[in-house]
Amino acid sequence: MSKYLEAVEKRRSIYAIGKNSPIIDDEIINIIKHALLHSPTAYNSQANRAVLLIGEDHNDLWDIVMETLRKIVPEKSFSKTEEKINSFKNGHGTVLIFEDVSETKALIDQFPLYKDTFPLWALQASGMLQYIIWTALEDKGLGASLQHYNPLIDDAVKVRWNLPHEWKLHAQMPFGEVLKSAGDKEFEPIEKTFRVFR
Amino acid sequence: MSKYLEAVEKRRSIYAIGKNSPIIDDEIINIIKHALLHSPTAYNSQANRAVLLIGEDHNDLWDIVMETLRKIVPEKSFSKTEEKINSFKNGHGTVLIFEDVSETKALIDQFPLYKDTFPLWALQASGMLQYIIWTALEDKGLGASLQHYNPLIDDAVKVRWNLPHEWKLHAQMPFGEVLKSAGDKEFEPIEKTFRVFR
Repeated sequence: MSKYLEAVEKRRSIYAIGKNSPIIDDEIINIIKHALLHSPTAYNSQANRAVLLIGEDHNDLWDIVMETLRKIVPEKSFSKTEEKINSFKNGHGTVLIFEDVSETKALIDQFPLYKDTFPLWALQASGMLQYIIWTALEDKGLGASLQHYNPLIDDAVKVRWNLPHEWKLHAQMPFGEVLKSAGDKEFEPIEKTFRVFR
Repeated sequence: MSKYLEAVEKRRSIYAIGKNSPIIDDEIINIIKHALLHSPTAYNSQANRAVLLIGEDHNDLWDIVMETLRKIVPEKSFSKTEEKINSFKNGHGTVLIFEDVSETKALIDQFPLYKDTFPLWALQASGMLQYIIWTALEDKGLGASLQHYNPLIDDAVKVRWNLPHEWKLHAQMPFGEVLKSAGDKEFEPIEKTFRVFR
């Protein structure tokens, strides 16, 4: 199997993460830059945006998530939510993935025929960026998972880090030292998901 | 740079493709199977579906695209469209990427709180699958690009290959021998797309 497909297979959702990192922060930064530059976008719109939070900034994000959810989750079931959020806060950092919707809107203005599909392509392109970062981090020995506390936390996040209004949050990726590997994964039979005609 | 990031950088949109392939069809099939099994989906829904068309089946797809567009593109500008479609038909095969919307609907029935977001996550997951296949093919020396003649061709494709009604077409990926490499790519300045707080 190619090294590429090995990395594809190695990527899993890792929930038990710690403060340490097997690589230095500058290498994490370079991974995200590389992913932003080389992930494909429709019409090369490059509408993807990313924010890396480390240290106190990472902690602040998960405090925002905690306080936001505390207001809406019933008190009696909050301990489970709290435990989950703390497991992400336990990590080394978080990557926030955004779409600059002003770029998508500019494409729609230029090619109105595709007004309904540009937003769908932007989501697919966002998935590609998320995937590249996730797999590249795990390839380097880090554990990561993809979380979605958007849109609940969007306003507080934009205020805290003074981010442009047009950046729409699509995903949060907490990562850190792998404290516990992923368990077995259940697979759909390939006959159900794939067909070949030749 | 890691082998993984090298493959990320190597992936480009390759439009000039030929009938030959540097790898045998069984290896192409294994790449798509691997991608379907190991690409992540929300709640492990595995709603992604793929169809591989090779030989006459590949030709039939691009004939469907040609006849569909001939009905709607003005005759005087059709020669450019025809040339583009023929460049894809020139390739070795095409991967069709679908979402089984019945799987997404089943998630919504189970977790109605996320009814608005499951379809968005399914699109991001589809992008991840598309990306894995694209990059894995190019890593093996093939050239590929991502095309979107959906939803125009959806009905004809489902009839021709007798595919389930619930499979929603998201993308078409023609691939083949690289006849001409990609040109230079323009990059947004990284300062515009990425911020670090630590």
